Amino acid sequence: GAAAAAAASASLKDPYAGDPARHPVLIPRTQKPFNGETPGSLLAAAAVTPTDVFFVRNHLPVPAVDTQAYRLQVAGEGARALELSLADLQSRFRKHHVTATIQCSGNRRNEMSAVKPVKGLEWDQGAIGTAVWGGVRLRDVLKAAGLSEDDPAVAHIHFEGLDTDPATGDVYGASIPLARALSPEADVLLAYEMNGAPLSADHGAPLRVVVPGVTGARSVKWLGRIVASPSESASHWQRRDYKAFCPSVDWDTVDWDSAPALQEPPVTSAICEPAPGTVLSAADGEVTLRGYAWSGGGRGIVRVDVSADGGRTWAAARLLPPPPGAPAHGAYTGAWAWTLWEATLPLPAAAGSSPGPDSASSSVTLVVKAVDSSYNNQPDSVAGIWNLRGVVNNAWHRVTLPLEP
Amino acid sequence: GAAAAAAASASLKDPYAGDPARHPVLIPRTQKPFNGETPGSLLAAAAVTPTDVFFVRNHLPVPAVDTQAYRLQVAGEGARALELSLADLQSRFRKHHVTATIQCSGNRRNEMSAVKPVKGLEWDQGAIGTAVWGGVRLRDVLKAAGLSEDDPAVAHIHFEGLDTDPATGDVYGASIPLARALSPEADVLLAYEMNGAPLSADHGAPLRVVVPGVTGARSVKWLGRIVASPSESASHWQRRDYKAFCPSVDWDTVDWDSAPALQEPPVTSAICEPAPGTVLSAADGEVTLRGYAWSGGGRGIVRVDVSADGGRTWAAARLLPPPPGAPAHGAYTGAWAWTLWEATLPLPAAAGSSPGPDSASSSVTLVVKAVDSSYNNQPDSVAGIWNLRGVVNNAWHRVTLPLEP
Ligand SMILES: [Mo]
Ligand SMILES: [Mo]
Repeated sequence: GAAAAAAASASLKDPYAGDPARHPVLIPRTQKPFNGETPGSLLAAAAVTPTDVFFVRNHLPVPAVDTQAYRLQVAGEGARALELSLADLQSRFRKHHVTATIQCSGNRRNEMSAVKPVKGLEWDQGAIGTAVWGGVRLRDVLKAAGLSEDDPAVAHIHFEGLDTDPATGDVYGASIPLARALSPEADVLLAYEMNGAPLSADHGAPLRVVVPGVTGARSVKWLGRIVASPSESASHWQRRDYKAFCPSVDWDTVDWDSAPALQEPPVTSAICEPAPGTVLSAADGEVTLRGYAWSGGGRGIVRVDVSADGGRTWAAARLLPPPPGAPAHGAYTGAWAWTLWEATLPLPAAAGSSPGPDSASSSVTLVVKAVDSSYNNQPDSVAGIWNLRGVVNNAWHRVTLPLEP
Repeated sequence: GAAAAAAASASLKDPYAGDPARHPVLIPRTQKPFNGETPGSLLAAAAVTPTDVFFVRNHLPVPAVDTQAYRLQVAGEGARALELSLADLQSRFRKHHVTATIQCSGNRRNEMSAVKPVKGLEWDQGAIGTAVWGGVRLRDVLKAAGLSEDDPAVAHIHFEGLDTDPATGDVYGASIPLARALSPEADVLLAYEMNGAPLSADHGAPLRVVVPGVTGARSVKWLGRIVASPSESASHWQRRDYKAFCPSVDWDTVDWDSAPALQEPPVTSAICEPAPGTVLSAADGEVTLRGYAWSGGGRGIVRVDVSADGGRTWAAARLLPPPPGAPAHGAYTGAWAWTLWEATLPLPAAAGSSPGPDSASSSVTLVVKAVDSSYNNQPDSVAGIWNLRGVVNNAWHRVTLPLEP
């Protein structure tokens, strides 16, 4: 029909021609669609990531949305159909702010590829960022559409993006359970602001979903439609992606329906500084590490352990102050934002004190692992959690650096 | 005062003389107080653990409580004081059933001791069990006392046991956050039944708390008093125990206030069969493993991976049907009960196929690890999560067995 015709026509020219310009510091992993990550030094530099260097994860071309003409559609089982302009949303619902980290499920996928090839973007540790999101509560909009926790016909809330596959006409889509969508504690937002300014094109203008404590794939950008449903979104990204399996499962044996769609991700952490390739000097006697730690589901970070000897011995890092609006470290609930940390560790004495024939080739392996408020720890190694899509890699993060005398 | 005098008098005779008899199959770790664990074969045998072989974890002598004279006290900030007999509870509040696993925070502590000594009971993997608990909702009783989510003066609900330290007169105590205590989804019970019968003396008769998805230490037995408070319970077990620290922290450096009280425990699993000491026969060609997997916070078990080569290769175990009243495997919320599993794995070919001079000393290391619905995985090894009290050991569970030709 019309969609197929439009798609066929679009494919004649470059469907990515309308994409916005990006900050040159973003490290591109693909150009079309654009996917770019934030350098580690910029992640560690601020508890709230500046918008222009916030990682970009696009599945499809950035849609050109006319903010004046924009209408959010609300539909589905048990819902009174709504059509809301941005002005309607801003005037009819109370504004809320939530400081929340968003992380791509494939963050740190490159470490999985190093174990065995996986399909996906070769993210290092920079597919994550934290922003202060402003908008209205999804709950309030769903209540205005007449939805309630007790409706037996509704179990999931679908989000449909305006970003469209130029070949198939399919839009990006995802869903979350109704209980989360309606929970006042879950803080799910329909955001029109990021860090105090209207959303940018790459981050979902004019309206996006922000599902705090949930993997980024559910925080649908360029939100076109909300649909109440008895079942999960039928989108590829809900049912055939963003799931993890046993390391023995390959593309011939995978049974996608056997695993639940990733919602809350597990506790993770990463070393952002020193950067890979930094040459350490044993004469300095010590090394300062900086990075982030974060967990899904609002579980706060209780502790970050660091090591300068590959994980044989550990010290607790200093946790930096939470970003504005975030609870104290270690909160049981509502900790949607990451915890930045830093630590100064002595460099191994042996390598510095006896510069012999081997010293040119000596190295130091820095390691970080974090603990969340359910006392979840990170797995030691990637091999045991390897999965064919390379998602949710939360193994101890290691950075091996050369050590000069 | 009177308490001290009673305590002094009690100490003249054996304060444990009134303890009940225990099933001889329970493996005692201490006798006074009694602490005994369930053999692995009995854990793996049934999704609901029979009451008489359910692990017993007592901090103090079992109190003799007269059920007829018993009154539950409800008091504290913002609460209308209540005194409720068992008959009051049963007649004035609706009865609920919850199928929930309870696990001691020190379960599998013996593996931590093997790394470096810790203080605590030397539990193997049997300080866990699952029962169908019957009783009234804590929420309903707190509502009857006039407590509400919005009361700014209340943040924690304390539970005081009737079990009393004969030396000091202190009672066992713990607390949980108010939000959990009042949440209808959290299913916190004041239980008077276990597996369809009135509570036994060892399991808290006539009334105990059952906090599903939370470490056992908060499910206070022989419940005497509930107190609403702005702060956590001041009890030793809330503030100076049941917390984990960096492996480098010892008894000289520990800062108890720096870590939150353990509430939801992390995902864990264990091999219950074959039992330690079993001699495997390579001629059998395969080995069948059985065990449990469980996570805190109502996060269901998504997958259980098993290995017969020490964790080099993995296969997914078969998940057995959930116990009555439990949701389907992999539920995001409300999965309070463990998942039993089984798997049959080929024995390593090399050891079986070439019985040479080394075959008498060959061995097989069986391993299990589980994944919960937040895709939390277990850490590979104990060393990285070692802590001075030896709590929340959820490393991959390994059983090394001799392999005969
Ligand atoms: Mo993603
Ligand atoms: Mo315990």
